[in-house]
Amino acid sequence: MKRSERIKECKEKIKIITHARTEIPHVVDKLVSSCDTKGCFDHVSAEPIPNRVAVVDILRRAAIILYPGYFISTRLDQTNLEYYLGQEVTAFFEVLSEQIILAIRHDCIRHNQPCVKCEELGQKITVEFLNELPALRNLLAKDIRAAYDGDPAAKSYDEIIFSYPGVWAIMVYRIANKLQRSKVPLLPRIMSEYAHSRTGIDIHPGATIGESFFIDHGTGVVIGETASIGNRVRIYQGVTLGALSLSKKECRLLRNKKRHPSIENDVIIYANATILGGETVVGARSVIGGNVWLTSSVPPDTEVFMEKQDLIFGKKKLKK
Amino acid sequence: MKRSERIKECKEKIKIITHARTEIPHVVDKLVSSCDTKGCFDHVSAEPIPNRVAVVDILRRAAIILYPGYFISTRLDQTNLEYYLGQEVTAFFEVLSEQIILAIRHDCIRHNQPCVKCEELGQKITVEFLNELPALRNLLAKDIRAAYDGDPAAKSYDEIIFSYPGVWAIMVYRIANKLQRSKVPLLPRIMSEYAHSRTGIDIHPGATIGESFFIDHGTGVVIGETASIGNRVRIYQGVTLGALSLSKKECRLLRNKKRHPSIENDVIIYANATILGGETVVGARSVIGGNVWLTSSVPPDTEVFMEKQDLIFGKKKLKK
Amino acid sequence: MKRSERIKECKEKIKIITHARTEIPHVVDKLVSSCDTKGCFDHVSAEPIPNRVAVVDILRRAAIILYPGYFISTRLDQTNLEYYLGQEVTAFFEVLSEQIILAIRHDCIRHNQPCVKCEELGQKITVEFLNELPALRNLLAKDIRAAYDGDPAAKSYDEIIFSYPGVWAIMVYRIANKLQRSKVPLLPRIMSEYAHSRTGIDIHPGATIGESFFIDHGTGVVIGETASIGNRVRIYQGVTLGALSLSKKECRLLRNKKRHPSIENDVIIYANATILGGETVVGARSVIGGNVWLTSSVPPDTEVFMEKQDLIFGKKKLKK
Repeated sequence: MKRSERIKECKEKIKIITHARTEIPHVVDKLVSSCDTKGCFDHVSAEPIPNRVAVVDILRRAAIILYPGYFISTRLDQTNLEYYLGQEVTAFFEVLSEQIILAIRHDCIRHNQPCVKCEELGQKITVEFLNELPALRNLLAKDIRAAYDGDPAAKSYDEIIFSYPGVWAIMVYRIANKLQRSKVPLLPRIMSEYAHSRTGIDIHPGATIGESFFIDHGTGVVIGETASIGNRVRIYQGVTLGALSLSKKECRLLRNKKRHPSIENDVIIYANATILGGETVVGARSVIGGNVWLTSSVPPDTEVFMEKQDLIFGKKKLKK
Repeated sequence: MKRSERIKECKEKIKIITHARTEIPHVVDKLVSSCDTKGCFDHVSAEPIPNRVAVVDILRRAAIILYPGYFISTRLDQTNLEYYLGQEVTAFFEVLSEQIILAIRHDCIRHNQPCVKCEELGQKITVEFLNELPALRNLLAKDIRAAYDGDPAAKSYDEIIFSYPGVWAIMVYRIANKLQRSKVPLLPRIMSEYAHSRTGIDIHPGATIGESFFIDHGTGVVIGETASIGNRVRIYQGVTLGALSLSKKECRLLRNKKRHPSIENDVIIYANATILGGETVVGARSVIGGNVWLTSSVPPDTEVFMEKQDLIFGKKKLKK
Repeated sequence: MKRSERIKECKEKIKIITHARTEIPHVVDKLVSSCDTKGCFDHVSAEPIPNRVAVVDILRRAAIILYPGYFISTRLDQTNLEYYLGQEVTAFFEVLSEQIILAIRHDCIRHNQPCVKCEELGQKITVEFLNELPALRNLLAKDIRAAYDGDPAAKSYDEIIFSYPGVWAIMVYRIANKLQRSKVPLLPRIMSEYAHSRTGIDIHPGATIGESFFIDHGTGVVIGETASIGNRVRIYQGVTLGALSLSKKECRLLRNKKRHPSIENDVIIYANATILGGETVVGARSVIGGNVWLTSSVPPDTEVFMEKQDLIFGKKKLKK
């Protein structure tokens, strides 16, 4: 290509880009005015709002504290452990209290309430949360042992801590549930949906779950807001603890009612079983087989399996 | 350990590493030559290719523009909103037009076509896309309202915007679908598979979906390329709108044919229902129950449920 | 607000924050002591442990080498290809050998074994792995062709490489499986669970999988540790190749036994089919229909479908 041609081509390109860019102010105007009409959602306000990235960071920091030495690239030993935890807990306090305060303040404003003690309340809830960390660690240790006992493919506790999605999702649930019980708005659900995104396991932070809980594989698991689960329960991928169907009107009436089942101690629920309804109780030590669809209670010590599925076995026709 | 021993051990280590490293050129040679034989895929060409990381960044930027103030850590108010949107839309224009142009050019080269107007075409498509942003915002607001109306666990619109995977996946679908209709290659599918990765919801960008669409929980949802969905439809986790089974030959013949079902206005499809086939139509206002397997049409205003599943209830035997 | 008021408010805040912060040392003390009681898991040891972030980075680097030019933003051509691969393979060697050595050493210590040749062994395994990269590339090319042949929605090989979750999950499986066969601890499972997290596809690194394998959509797929899969097999979302149910005692006995099914060459398994048990064999060229639940073997060339599901069709009652 000759120099003159190259210059010409370059000028053409500039013209195209310049032309395209002249459209931008027009788009911006429309974006600003379209939101005036309340046909869309924005958060244009003097008050800051909790930040999703910060909430995800809180979970990363929590894991570092709850499993010291596992999720860092530096070495921990008895000489630096206390110093390390001191530093990490302080930093955790800062980011967690900031987001809790933002969430509380945002909620006050949303309900047109004065935010007189948002800061104080946020600090208080954060300190309460920190005080529960040691107990949380013991609780998580029981979940990890339940995973080891429940999965013949598990090679070591370390493998479980590093890689089992169920164990990680339960950690996030236990954190989110504590914040939910302290009435922190927004953050619990952001946390649980982040865990859902990473693991395919959708546990509503409002659910009640006992000790030594194990979810194997986990993709597709749904545990609804008002479900309650006892101790030493084990569930597999695709299990739904859900609500019965709702019309739009019922949907509104049922907010805050118990809509999801109760699972008693020592129950096992195999893959893709669906258990629905707020009055459905699965009695202690029962076993629910894979693919079972259950909308009524079963007594303790019951095994429930699908009737043998009717299958059609055919000789494959040869296709060209 | 004595100094002399430590030196010896250190020398040993260096020997091992040096020995291992001498293998590297051999591996590189084989990697270069193995690809000459066309037994593998590479993109060794003077032309750059779209970049997955950049495409993911486009979605992040789109969310920032479509929901002003939600996904940033700084404050937006009426004084800086226009300035903020101006800056964000300009940056968005740059990254989006660059990737669109790369995708178009890559496609031209793949089909041995001259790429005479790739740049111009790419700019044009980008401007068209920007002009649709205000309408897209209104469309997404309807999806968010549908989520609030359809889920009794929803506490606020903010919670939905921050955390509902279905709402996020639908946003990505609506963006990818617009680009697909502008015949942009590669990018729409990269976008939809990124959403699939984050949410477990797999919506092909070629699908047609109306207003006020809500997907609850969402993990395992599959909506095929030629599916069409009306307005105010609600679906749950694990729902498949798929194709009937195909032999390899049929697979080739069916490219670009309608292979996936049509769902009319106001239909509800409960968890894990499977609806298959390009001629299957679910009539308006119908309700499809959980786990239903459907390969033929149903008229409007129909409720379809599984016959009560035959279950075997047994007394659990005590095991030691 | 007057200056004096502002100062007062500011002092109040400082008091609240100071008060909250005084709680931190107390929490740290409890965290340090709670772990002394062995009621929790930590990794406080002079030995470093493999790092999850580094393992994820290894997969990113592997993809860059296995698909040259696809996952980078710079251009590759014949003049710089060898230089580029040389640089990438060297860097890959460093990070991979480091993590392999850490994993081996960690395992030695866990079993109270002296770690005399951990470094040497780690280097050796890494070199062996590098030498298999060219063959791995050819193997992956066959998987990509199988995806193109099996999915009528596929537009190009590039689209498949960029965006198909099944193809990516199979790449990770093939890498993890090679390391598992070299008896590298921890890393294979961290890799496979990262793939599970990104794709919803859970393939245990111990499974055996032949050539030209295709997983479409993929969310919810579970392939157990001792499953074996032949050549040219195609499976869809939600397919489980799993174990039959286990009591806690059986769980312990069954570690390292064959618990998952065998799938012979050219089999197709449609969405959400469940195939269970270590003695279950699906014969060559068979087709297993969607939602089928199979716990016994089927001979070659068999089609297995669900008996037509009994559905209840009702007229929808009008609700106000």
